[in-house]
Amino acid sequence: MTTDGGPDAYELRVLGHIRSPLTKLSDAPKQGDEGAPDAVLEIDASVGPALAGLAPGDQIVVITWLHLGDRETLAVHPRGDTSRPLTGVFATRSPDRPNPLGLHRCGVLVVDGTRLTVSGLEAVDGTPVVDVKIALGDLGDR
Amino acid sequence: MTTDGGPDAYELRVLGHIRSPLTKLSDAPKQGDEGAPDAVLEIDASVGPALAGLAPGDQIVVITWLHLGDRETLAVHPRGDTSRPLTGVFATRSPDRPNPLGLHRCGVLVVDGTRLTVSGLEAVDGTPVVDVKIALGDLGDR
Repeated sequence: MTTDGGPDAYELRVLGHIRSPLTKLSDAPKQGDEGAPDAVLEIDASVGPALAGLAPGDQIVVITWLHLGDRETLAVHPRGDTSRPLTGVFATRSPDRPNPLGLHRCGVLVVDGTRLTVSGLEAVDGTPVVDVKIALGDLGDR
Repeated sequence: MTTDGGPDAYELRVLGHIRSPLTKLSDAPKQGDEGAPDAVLEIDASVGPALAGLAPGDQIVVITWLHLGDRETLAVHPRGDTSRPLTGVFATRSPDRPNPLGLHRCGVLVVDGTRLTVSGLEAVDGTPVVDVKIALGDLGDR
């Protein structure tokens, strides 16, 4: 697929899971600021040391693997509204896309070992977590 | 590794590559707003239809695979400054992390088929592109 001489794919490791009262996709808001509940990131103990330094009040970006997304979909009606024209998924935030990565900006509420409670995360219970980063902008350059 | 009954890993497909005048990691700024040059996203033709709707002036989030990152690193001195205490990589933006995903917010300058010229992207030439999303906030809910 690639013409760059590099690999065609990489192994994306599951580093933890979302624990959320949202259990059905039909109940989940489309974005975290649209009434999403607080959730817990259950991070695997093997990468627990990567959490060192995170504290309540921090703003983070959580990257998930939206495992219920359809990887073959290349165009959608934005927000499922069929009155809107078909649009390439790269011009949307649809969970259906070749690599169904989810981006979630949220605030850290509680750090309890390898369990982080965060505010307003719209992914359903059991969604794999693949990365966590400090958010930039509000918080400087860490 | 995971205790959720799901897969331990997913196949992250390379969907394109960055073309940039930055060829050495030592020349690359740490963030896109720190003097990064314009770059081209060369998207694979097989996912070209996913670009439909993107236009000059759009703000996007590009997700890359920072292939030069060290996946075994769990803690770093932020920004390589050894006077700063060792910090878990999830509390930083270090490219060294278990899944070395890069997040780059940039503006679309030119769309030419499956080649997108974008402003201020700090990844080096040849970096794999794994996702593109419209940015939220400035641009509504697409």
